Amino acid sequence: MTRYFDEELLELNKRILQMSTEVEADIGNSIKALRELSREKAEAVIREDDLIDRMELEIEEKCLNLIALYQPTAADLRFIVMSLKITTDLERIADLAVDIAQRVKEMADQPLLKPLIDIPKLATLAQGMVRDAINSFVNKDAELARSVILRDDEVDKLRNQVQSELINDYMCKDPTTVPRGVALLLVARHLERICDHATNIAEDVIYLVKAEVVKHHPEILK
Amino acid sequence: MTRYFDEELLELNKRILQMSTEVEADIGNSIKALRELSREKAEAVIREDDLIDRMELEIEEKCLNLIALYQPTAADLRFIVMSLKITTDLERIADLAVDIAQRVKEMADQPLLKPLIDIPKLATLAQGMVRDAINSFVNKDAELARSVILRDDEVDKLRNQVQSELINDYMCKDPTTVPRGVALLLVARHLERICDHATNIAEDVIYLVKAEVVKHHPEILK
Repeated sequence: MTRYFDEELLELNKRILQMSTEVEADIGNSIKALRELSREKAEAVIREDDLIDRMELEIEEKCLNLIALYQPTAADLRFIVMSLKITTDLERIADLAVDIAQRVKEMADQPLLKPLIDIPKLATLAQGMVRDAINSFVNKDAELARSVILRDDEVDKLRNQVQSELINDYMCKDPTTVPRGVALLLVARHLERICDHATNIAEDVIYLVKAEVVKHHPEILK
Repeated sequence: MTRYFDEELLELNKRILQMSTEVEADIGNSIKALRELSREKAEAVIREDDLIDRMELEIEEKCLNLIALYQPTAADLRFIVMSLKITTDLERIADLAVDIAQRVKEMADQPLLKPLIDIPKLATLAQGMVRDAINSFVNKDAELARSVILRDDEVDKLRNQVQSELINDYMCKDPTTVPRGVALLLVARHLERICDHATNIAEDVIYLVKAEVVKHHPEILK
């Protein structure tokens, strides 16, 4: 039965990784829709959200079943409960990709306000943080989790840069740019919030790994 | 032991209600700071966040202990796992009150752009939605949960109104208003996101109550 339980945990990990891959693709697709100001691509990201919602529900059911069936030990229980929390974060990240797609639809009637440089950088950073946060979880890798948290400063810097450029160089100079400026500024905010979710996951991973370490080596607390 | 477990569940409910009351106060205080453009009040909201983080951690530990000690049945397990999810939502709502407080600090050097009408309305709506979402959970009241979800349309309407007024009547007409306009617009967005969290909680409650109904009356699925 223990071996069977271990296999179930591996299966759970696999599903979380699958969900994470989909969510990462969503982020990329929402930015592709932005670059091309493509309504169709934006709509595709919005439609994809149903799949993500389904994945979340299935993982949630799996977690509940695992707890009910196997009555896992404290460490395994903590891992399963963390899986539930992380799945919620992934679902919210997908919602933020949908938010970006909505902004694209709002902008699609006019040309892009400016060539995109920092926003795609921010998106790549966000994708990497999500990927690494999930990997740090399934591999219980506190170092990788820590590296995710450290990247948050860079995110803040980039987002500030985007925002002050839009406000000072465009919106304050030419009022006709305000609606598009606001939409782009919100895209940067959505991406920042995706990074916040990745940071939340990474913090949970550190807490999870530390709890295990503390459990197995209580002397480190002394 | 069952009676003891029931008492533990009541205690869990009590703590969630306490946390919810604190979070609701945070929202109110962030808006009070905004009305008065008070740096000190904004700082107080930011400091309060430590307390909320601690409350979250304590509830999380309590939930894990309950599951490990009592190995609850499927329905109770679902309730406890939902408590974990809801606590995360409450913590994120408190983060959004902190976000509002940050915007207040950004605006504190200049007079308010305009008298606040719709934003306080939005804040009151947000507080009510959070309160009712949590009450619907502890009382397993699907009707109340449904009423929370229905209010989301009003939120969208109000937020759109705030945003288009700020963009069209202020920022597009007078570029010097852009930085303060952006800050107020973000406050409205933070409030909208608080309402989204309340809606998420309410949706979870409906799912929880329905699962119980289905469990006790499987014929309704036929």
